[in-house]
Amino acid sequence: MIREPQQERSRTTRRRLIDAAVECIGELGWTGTTVALIAERAGVSRGAAQHHFPARENLVAAAVEHVGEVQITELKRHADGLPTGSSRIEAVVDMLLNLYAGPMFRAALHLWVAASTDEGLRGTLVPLEARVGREAHRLAVELLGVDESHPGVRELVQATLDLARGLGLANLLTDDTRRRRQIIRQWSRVLGSELLPAATEPRQRDVRPKTR
Amino acid sequence: MIREPQQERSRTTRRRLIDAAVECIGELGWTGTTVALIAERAGVSRGAAQHHFPARENLVAAAVEHVGEVQITELKRHADGLPTGSSRIEAVVDMLLNLYAGPMFRAALHLWVAASTDEGLRGTLVPLEARVGREAHRLAVELLGVDESHPGVRELVQATLDLARGLGLANLLTDDTRRRRQIIRQWSRVLGSELLPAATEPRQRDVRPKTR
Repeated sequence: MIREPQQERSRTTRRRLIDAAVECIGELGWTGTTVALIAERAGVSRGAAQHHFPARENLVAAAVEHVGEVQITELKRHADGLPTGSSRIEAVVDMLLNLYAGPMFRAALHLWVAASTDEGLRGTLVPLEARVGREAHRLAVELLGVDESHPGVRELVQATLDLARGLGLANLLTDDTRRRRQIIRQWSRVLGSELLPAATEPRQRDVRPKTR
Repeated sequence: MIREPQQERSRTTRRRLIDAAVECIGELGWTGTTVALIAERAGVSRGAAQHHFPARENLVAAAVEHVGEVQITELKRHADGLPTGSSRIEAVVDMLLNLYAGPMFRAALHLWVAASTDEGLRGTLVPLEARVGREAHRLAVELLGVDESHPGVRELVQATLDLARGLGLANLLTDDTRRRRQIIRQWSRVLGSELLPAATEPRQRDVRPKTR
């Protein structure tokens, strides 16, 4: 049996701790989460956990980055299968508005709310969330295939991501899937007709007047 | 000096406890909040507090109802000053999208997040929030002056309220006023043009084709 190289083992441990942190925070909240508890759940010794993450705040920073990366990767993975043409916006809106319906958003929410009464945590979270938010926005624009220099486009993309977080909130205590689906359908329709003129590639060649 | 009648004194005590509960939950979170602490902040004896609210859950129920009522009253108060005609939707959207930017939403958020890991609290909150949500929706429809039987109208009003809560979330850790203002402007414009055909009173008589 070939032994796992040191560096890879270290990466695996780190990753298991981060996964356990996201789980713990989502289930027990920030106040209920300790490095010892995370280590136990990850099946990692407390010493090894503390080697990777000296304090709970370090784990949080890594967890937020991880959650952000997972979301971005998820979006990119779906992007390859997206249709082109006018049904593209609908497919992207569907993806975006379902982005915060899962357990990762729950963990993030616990952190945000805890940070609202904990200055140290706020100092860690705010710059990280700003970066993750910017990246999500950039990717949303790219996936929608729209040009942000058109007036109003930037705000509609922002509104879509804010709506996504609002829908995540509505899904926190009860299963809101059915209602969300109808909102997604309607939002797609509106966004489609609003963003069409800002699409970076012509979508409805046939209806465009043939000038020149 | 005329003594405050018993019933009125009791109402005042109750109200002071509820205000203190909203403050405490918003500042210290659900885990940091106790009936004793609320009583102290309200300047009410612990005995009197327990007479009104035997458990923390009773206070929460009263607090959520109170927050809901304040929001509804606030909306209704503004309603009288709303313009008629095409600028009405813009004014209502401005009101709705600023609805969750304040400290009351912070308290509600603490409760929702706590309820996601506390079954007892969830049982108290879910029916209350459903009622408050329905009432907010009903009032939004009334203020916008639209007819929900038009296809898509219901979902657009729901989306507006979900967007409002998403914007409340974005305002939790940093001051998001400037960005929110631009989103409000753009969404008002879009909603205005989307809802115009569903307006219950003609807004642009002059541009309507004169049929019959």
